[in-house]
Amino acid sequence: MTSPGLTELTARPDDSGIDTAVGAVRRLAAALLAAGGRVDLDLDDLARRLTAMAGEVEELAPELADRMVDMWSGEGVTRHDPVTGPENAIAPPLVLSAEPDSPDGAVSGTVNLGISYQGPPGCVHGGISALLLDHTLGVANAHAGTSGMTGTLTLRYERPVPLHTDLVVRGWQERVEGRKIWSHGTITSGDEVLVRAEGLFIDKHVERPRRGPSQ
Amino acid sequence: MTSPGLTELTARPDDSGIDTAVGAVRRLAAALLAAGGRVDLDLDDLARRLTAMAGEVEELAPELADRMVDMWSGEGVTRHDPVTGPENAIAPPLVLSAEPDSPDGAVSGTVNLGISYQGPPGCVHGGISALLLDHTLGVANAHAGTSGMTGTLTLRYERPVPLHTDLVVRGWQERVEGRKIWSHGTITSGDEVLVRAEGLFIDKHVERPRRGPSQ
Repeated sequence: MTSPGLTELTARPDDSGIDTAVGAVRRLAAALLAAGGRVDLDLDDLARRLTAMAGEVEELAPELADRMVDMWSGEGVTRHDPVTGPENAIAPPLVLSAEPDSPDGAVSGTVNLGISYQGPPGCVHGGISALLLDHTLGVANAHAGTSGMTGTLTLRYERPVPLHTDLVVRGWQERVEGRKIWSHGTITSGDEVLVRAEGLFIDKHVERPRRGPSQ
Repeated sequence: MTSPGLTELTARPDDSGIDTAVGAVRRLAAALLAAGGRVDLDLDDLARRLTAMAGEVEELAPELADRMVDMWSGEGVTRHDPVTGPENAIAPPLVLSAEPDSPDGAVSGTVNLGISYQGPPGCVHGGISALLLDHTLGVANAHAGTSGMTGTLTLRYERPVPLHTDLVVRGWQERVEGRKIWSHGTITSGDEVLVRAEGLFIDKHVERPRRGPSQ
């Protein structure tokens, strides 16, 4: 479901093929964590069935070098990263959009995290907040037209970030000086800022894996 | 397999039940990401089988409030967190140990990350490095005897962090002043420091979920 007036900058899971299979893995991972080891289920049998499935998929997977070219094809949106990637079961996934009429060119998205992302009891892990913000600052930089590698990232944790709550992750590029890029971000719930991030990025072209002309 | 002379501070996956099932989910998640959407496999059928399994596990899972008490039982090691938790498919998982005879009371562990944790092509996502370090600083604080919530975390990315390489994640408590705790950490490969972290933590007792006396 897309919201009217928003330009999405990251991939949105679709309802067939790989995204659905990965979505089911994500759901199973959360279910097993919610169940724990005391569940009245033959976990060894479940493990055997899953291992067989993994073997089946591994058998058919392309060579890693080919897959790397494929996952980095094009110059825009990736589908594999651990924050927004519909093909990555680690990703919640977060969908980021350009905010319409934003004076600071901000990008943002809403995410609701379950116990897979827990740090302190009932709260999002501080490192997960860092992961969401680092990625969002990177997308904000790409949206602004000048992006690079993270040099320094500072996170200020102002309030605990609750699980099972709609969180808005927001990022914007503050300024560019030569090869240095400063970007800011926040995680908010309602009107409250929970975490602030400040990143210094270095404008550097990172080569994407490509096939040689002879291949 | 435990190394002689090391005191492990986090859970190590064992070879039966929940850890094996979660390990198989982790392997399947990596396999699907390595395969991508062009694999010659009936992904919709795979998704249906996985969704059925997830439904089966969800049906048998305890109430979330009960599970929260269970996962936070004891005061020590957790088995559910997204960094070291054997029951969490998001966790690589990293196993942290107290370094024997370390003058700074450091804790460390070795981890080798695949494409599920990718940021720039062939490299670990900067936010994943932040996640590993935030958690390791927390374990270092617990090991030192005074721990708390992350207040500020600063990451300095000195060199790209390669995938498919043994990385040592290390953390130690630098000093404590009143309720403020300063801790440092690094990610290294061989002799090279790739990422440095500095955290300011606030000593604060976070209530763990407990059952009331009447329950």
